[in-house]
This record gives sequence, C-alpha cells and structure tokens, in this order.
Amino acid sequence: MEEHRATKEELIAKAEKPAKDSLKMHPFYKGKIEVVPKCVIRSVDDFAVWYTPGVAAVCKDIERDPEASYIHTDRANMVGIVTDGTRVLGLGDIGPLAAMPVMEGKALLFKYLGGVDAFPICLDTKDPDEFIRTVKLLQPSFGGINLEDIENPKCFYILEKLREEASIPVWHDDQQGTAAVTVAGLINALKIVGKKMEEAKITMVGIGAANVCIVRMLIKAGADPKKIIVVDSKGILNCKRDDIRPTHKEKLEFCQTTNAANRDGGIEEAMKGQDVVIALSKQGPDTIQKSWVSAMADNAIVFVCANPIPEMWPWDAKEAGAKVVATGRSDFANQVNNSIGFPAIFRGTLDVMARTITDEMCIAAAVELARCAEDKGIHEDYLLPTMDEWEVFPREAVAVAKKAMEQGVARLKLSEKELFQMAETKIRRARDEVGLLMEKGIIPPYEE
Amino acid sequence: MEEHRATKEELIAKAEKPAKDSLKMHPFYKGKIEVVPKCVIRSVDDFAVWYTPGVAAVCKDIERDPEASYIHTDRANMVGIVTDGTRVLGLGDIGPLAAMPVMEGKALLFKYLGGVDAFPICLDTKDPDEFIRTVKLLQPSFGGINLEDIENPKCFYILEKLREEASIPVWHDDQQGTAAVTVAGLINALKIVGKKMEEAKITMVGIGAANVCIVRMLIKAGADPKKIIVVDSKGILNCKRDDIRPTHKEKLEFCQTTNAANRDGGIEEAMKGQDVVIALSKQGPDTIQKSWVSAMADNAIVFVCANPIPEMWPWDAKEAGAKVVATGRSDFANQVNNSIGFPAIFRGTLDVMARTITDEMCIAAAVELARCAEDKGIHEDYLLPTMDEWEVFPREAVAVAKKAMEQGVARLKLSEKELFQMAETKIRRARDEVGLLMEKGIIPPYEE
Repeated sequence: MEEHRATKEELIAKAEKPAKDSLKMHPFYKGKIEVVPKCVIRSVDDFAVWYTPGVAAVCKDIERDPEASYIHTDRANMVGIVTDGTRVLGLGDIGPLAAMPVMEGKALLFKYLGGVDAFPICLDTKDPDEFIRTVKLLQPSFGGINLEDIENPKCFYILEKLREEASIPVWHDDQQGTAAVTVAGLINALKIVGKKMEEAKITMVGIGAANVCIVRMLIKAGADPKKIIVVDSKGILNCKRDDIRPTHKEKLEFCQTTNAANRDGGIEEAMKGQDVVIALSKQGPDTIQKSWVSAMADNAIVFVCANPIPEMWPWDAKEAGAKVVATGRSDFANQVNNSIGFPAIFRGTLDVMARTITDEMCIAAAVELARCAEDKGIHEDYLLPTMDEWEVFPREAVAVAKKAMEQGVARLKLSEKELFQMAETKIRRARDEVGLLMEKGIIPPYEE
Repeated sequence: MEEHRATKEELIAKAEKPAKDSLKMHPFYKGKIEVVPKCVIRSVDDFAVWYTPGVAAVCKDIERDPEASYIHTDRANMVGIVTDGTRVLGLGDIGPLAAMPVMEGKALLFKYLGGVDAFPICLDTKDPDEFIRTVKLLQPSFGGINLEDIENPKCFYILEKLREEASIPVWHDDQQGTAAVTVAGLINALKIVGKKMEEAKITMVGIGAANVCIVRMLIKAGADPKKIIVVDSKGILNCKRDDIRPTHKEKLEFCQTTNAANRDGGIEEAMKGQDVVIALSKQGPDTIQKSWVSAMADNAIVFVCANPIPEMWPWDAKEAGAKVVATGRSDFANQVNNSIGFPAIFRGTLDVMARTITDEMCIAAAVELARCAEDKGIHEDYLLPTMDEWEVFPREAVAVAKKAMEQGVARLKLSEKELFQMAETKIRRARDEVGLLMEKGIIPPYEE
C-alpha cells in the first residue's frame, strides 16, 4: 500500500513530467524507430547478392513456393501495427497522423521486450471495410498484424473479418492483449485470496472492447459464466434487457449466458456479494464507491483499470475491505500492463509461424505470466511481473508457441528447449543492440 | 576496354555466383532489414516518455498542427517502397510476395547509400486504382513514396495520379531514377566526345517507362526534341504512324514533337548518322548490330542498358567505332546504375521537406553526378561515379535540395553548408551503424 495518498490533482501533475519530456525528446530524435540492415554489407559488392542480379534467384524461389518468403525475407519477424487513429489512448479520435507517435512507441516495445520487428501503419480512412481491404493488401509485407486503438464497435467487426479472411495472424491488442494480462492478474489474485476460478463470482464493469474479450477468455480459463455479472452504462445485463441493439452481438450473448440469477440494477447491485470486480469503464475516482466494495464478499479482488485515473483510488478500495487491488498505472502496485503481454505473445506466435493467435494461446501466456510472478513470490502488492523482468518474456513466448503447436495452428514444430533459446536469443539481441548503439553514440544521449 | 571478351554463356555463368550466394545468404539472415529504436531507452521508465502517458502530449501537438508530424515521428526520414510485383527486375509479373526480396534490397541501398529509412510495401493487387487508393491511405506513415517495379503502362497512370493527389512526394524509380542517372552519363559522354547536348542527334531504342522519362528529361536538360528519334518495336515514331493506341499519350506526343525530319524505318534507320543511341529495350547481344553502329556519326555514344545482357556487347560497339559505351552491368565499364541516384535524391528531398520531386530536381542530381565524376577525371571508361564513391551522395543531395528550394517546393530553407552537413552526417551515421553492428556481431558474419 502507498504511504502517501495522492490527490487527483497531484497524480495529474505527476503525469505532466513525462508529457513535458516527451514534447522535448521526440523532436530531439525525430521519431523513435529506424530501418536498419541486418545482413552483412562487407562492401558494395555485396549488393550483387542482396540486390540485383543475385536476388532474382531468391524471388523465383518464393514465386515457386510462397512459404519460402518466411526464410528469405523479414516477414517471419515483422508485424504491422495498424490503426485508423479513432480511439488513441484516452484521446479519442485524433486521426492517423496524430496516432503515429503511439504506434512508433508500440514498435519500440515490440522490439525491446519481444525482439519483434514492428512497423507502424496509420491508415487515413474511417471506413471499416476499406480498412479491412487495405490490411489484406498489405499481407505480403508482414508476418502478423497488431490492430491498435480502433474505436468500438468497429474494432470487433474489423478483427472478426480479418481473422476470417487474412492468411496471417491478426489480433487486436486492446482486446486479446488486455484480456491476457488481466486474466494473468486475476489468476494470481485468486491464489492470494485462496479462491478458485471455477467458483469465483465475477463482476465486469463496462463493456468496451477489452471487457468483452476478458469475459470470453475468463470463461475459457475456467470461470463459470453463470456467476459472471456484466454491467454497462444502463445497468446489469440480463434477459430482461430490451434496449440492446441487434448489432451488438456480444451484449446480446452475455444477456443470455451470464448472470444466471437474473440480477438487475446498477454497478452497486452488480458488486454485492461478488468475489471479484473488474472495471475498465469511466475514469474515476468516483465511478466506484467505497461502500460498494464493502458490500462485496470477504477478501474481495478489485481491478480498477481506467486510465489515467482509476475508477476508485486503490487506498479507498483497501480501506473498504478489498484484499487485492490492481490498476492500469505504473505508479501503484499491481499494474495491469499490456506491455508484458503482446511482445512475448507475438514472439511465440512468430517463432512457430502460427497461422493465427487463438484465445487459448493468450490464456497460455496468462498462465505463464502468473507462474513467473508466483515463482518470485506473489503477495497482495505483487500480482504480475513488470516490464523490466525481462526473463519473463522468453518463458511467456514458449508457452504461447507450445499451445500453438498443440492446437495445430503452428507451421513449425520445435522442442521447448529450442523455443526458449530462440526467444531468448532474439530478445537479448534486441536489448544488446540498443545498448550498443547508445554506448557508441549512434543513438546519441539526450541533451536538453 | 575489356581484355577478355566473354561469351554470353560465360556472362550468364558469372551471374550465377551471386544467385547461389543469394539463395544461401538470405535464409541465414532471414531477410535484410529490421526495425530498431533510434531513441534512448535508459530503462523501461523511458517508456513513460516514448509511450503512455507522456506520448499523449506529442499526439495532441500533431492533432493541432499536422506539420508537427515531421518533428515528432520518423516520417521526415521514412520512405515507402511500394510495388505490386508486376514487373520485377527482368522476371516480369512474379507477384508482391516474390517481389519482397528486391524491395528489401532497395531498402538496404536507401539506408546505406542515402541514410534514408525505407520500408517495403508489397501490395496484393493488380488494380491500379486500388493501388493508388492504398498508397494514399498509407501517407500518414511516410514522408515519401518510391514506386518500384510496376508494369508499363500502368506505372505512368499510377505515378501521374499519385503526384496529383498525394500530399507527399511520389516518384517511380524506374522512370525518374533511371532517367536521372542516364542523363548524368550522357552529359559526361558528350563532354568526352566534345559535342553539345543542344546539338546532339539522339536515338532512343525502346519506349518503356524509363525511356519515356529519359526523353522528357533530356529535353528539359537542353536536348533538341527535333533531333531526337524514338523507335519502338514497330519502327520509328513519326507523324505517319497510325497504329498507336489513343491511350498511349506519351507515344502520340513523341510522334508530334520528335523526329522533325520525319524519318522512318527500324532501329537501323533510326541510328544512321546519329551522335547518340540510348537503348533500354530487348536483351541482346543481337538486338543492335555492329554495322548499325558503324553507320552512326563519328565518335558515337552507345548506351546499351538491357539487363542482364545488353543489346550488344560493348566490345562489338567499340569495334564498330563507338567512342563511349555504357551498359547496365557492374562488370563492364560505365555502369548506368540507379543506385547512384535514388538514395541521394531522396536524401535531398527529405532534408528540405520538399512537397514533390520535380524533373528539374532530378536533372540537378544528374548534373552534380556528372560533375563528381568530372572532378575525378572522366575518360571513355569512367563516365559516372560508382556506388562506393560515397562522398558523391551528399553533394548530389545538396544539389537536389537547392533546386527544390529554388523551385519553391521545399518547406525548409537551409544554407548549402547546412544541407551538406545534414546529408553527410546522416549517410555517415548509416554506414557507421552497419559497421558497428557487424564489428560487434549483432550482425553476425556469414557462415556457410
């Protein structure tokens, strides 16, 4: 628990320091990524091998066998980070050009944490079908697609269509990525309070892209849908609700499958007696009241993940009786942070050339993430690994790759040892590379 | 002049070595480029600046002022190499997936020779309008577009439309790039034989994408259109020709504007008495006959640039009386090589944030390229700089940037000294970076 209870104003002020640094440091480096040769160039004569005339033989090899693109090009390690800029961070629809710095930042994380090459593609369209068509046209350049910051409900449609129609893995980090890390956190939170996933009464506050996916994954991870309660801005989802648009398939389905007791009411009623509340909804700190937490079951688990201000302050949740509290912020204990998910999940996916990223692969990542923290010793202020525990990422990648092989979606079959070595080597290389470039001044030190 | 006169078979065999190496070396490195951080990552804490929460301030800055994308993102140095794979090298329509190794090779050249970040985009469509639409959607990610290996005449339509409708510079290397380097070569060839561009009688063999652009640029560089003769597969273009499709605007125009003497016939007739022949047509070595060269004016200039086998052997051209002979091959003297053009032309374009790449900017590059060779001492076997004369590239970039400023298409105004320093620093950095990565084993040595 934090000793100092910051006010909302203090926390907002605290967030201003990175913003100020960001405005100065971005122009200093003029962006964050570059495209660099990864093959030897001993002299310009090598261009006869890498370019014309030698390269023609490699092209013909791929023409004969399209799968050879994975051995002759960067595709095997290259992910496109694709957005339309319609829901960027907490900023909303700021457009593709303004979204670029976030996508470049994401590319940094992909490389530094997962050894994955990632390239930002910001598409100047708001039309979902044009978006889908464009991503399909871009497939020859990429081994996978990470969708990012696309508004809801468009993002469901885009993801679903692309998973059906694309020949490379496509995922939406705001859905599967957030869900994987949240599930990991919950697995350990339940261990701490000594409750079982199968028996836990779980309330979800909010029905955005992430929450829909979290519910689906929790069920696949063993949670009992009958004991799950989902509450949106109009109240608890139940079979009496007649205000739901027929296009919102996910809500309609949850009305049928969750909340077997057919409870109704608002967030307060939805939390009563529950073991777990997971909120990714409206910024706080007053979205969830202390008294509502007090009315939960003993040893309650509270995930309040709105950014930057959680639905309630963690100290308030604790005071109200919560045993374990998690947020989206790095300055509180138990950050639910996508960055411990996507880099390694893609690492594992690419390493076995998987055709897709299944929910089960995400759950395998979650279980392994949870286990990594457990190996270090979990407690109520340490649920999940943090970004700087880099040894976690190869383990997570291996878990994902193994699940892909088990499910028959992997093109390659490798042993656990080979997989671990592969992932570790690639991640270590990325970190060593950045370290070397900084040490030798190719990446210059920042000067104000 | 070469001492050894290789046979066609020997030359083809010679080209097999890079092909063999290529087939082994590509899988060793699994592609040729990677995406690397170019900003400091002192610890994971820096991600609060490069990613959330700090990055939001930078996004908002771009939302307010779209031009700020050039200072906050990689855009200012990032070029998309875009192809549909319909005319790749001499291989024809091998498709976008098989085209990837060429585009990655091109990205290597962009970086190593020009310090330009370039990313290969291989589009899975053959429809020119879909191609155009997609490139326009991709604009937020790039500061410029290099079109590559698109079949003729589609490539004219795509380039023209994109130059009209895109807000970033778009060029087609197989048109403007080839033309710039060819013009540079011709400038020096004319100096060697003591003839003037304005007076030279020039014959163009072939009317592909490059030749059309070469004619246009030669005229802008001072050549007299009346003295130019263009010959296609059906014969010399003249105003009697009635077989030309109305959609082939360029041919129709040349029928009117070139060949004032209204000559007709085939290649043989087109070459008679001419000072210069520039052929980018059908592979040889028998496309052009020795006797046709003998019938040219004294001190004839012969550019036979079909790849990999030129329209005639250079020694045959010399024997027939040509004074200067150039080809597309690196193993003969006087290679007309695009790689001495596009990296520096884009360097100069990006350094002043030019809105377009005009023909005049390309001609400025050609003139400077010619001057670089002249400074070293031109002679009949040294017309043009080669790729390893890296001091040429900053000079060329400066010439391009200055022309852009002069023509009012540059967003930035910089002094010649600043421009030179900027270009030299960026190119040197790229070379140093590759050198360092090889030295420290991040790029491992190739092992068979």
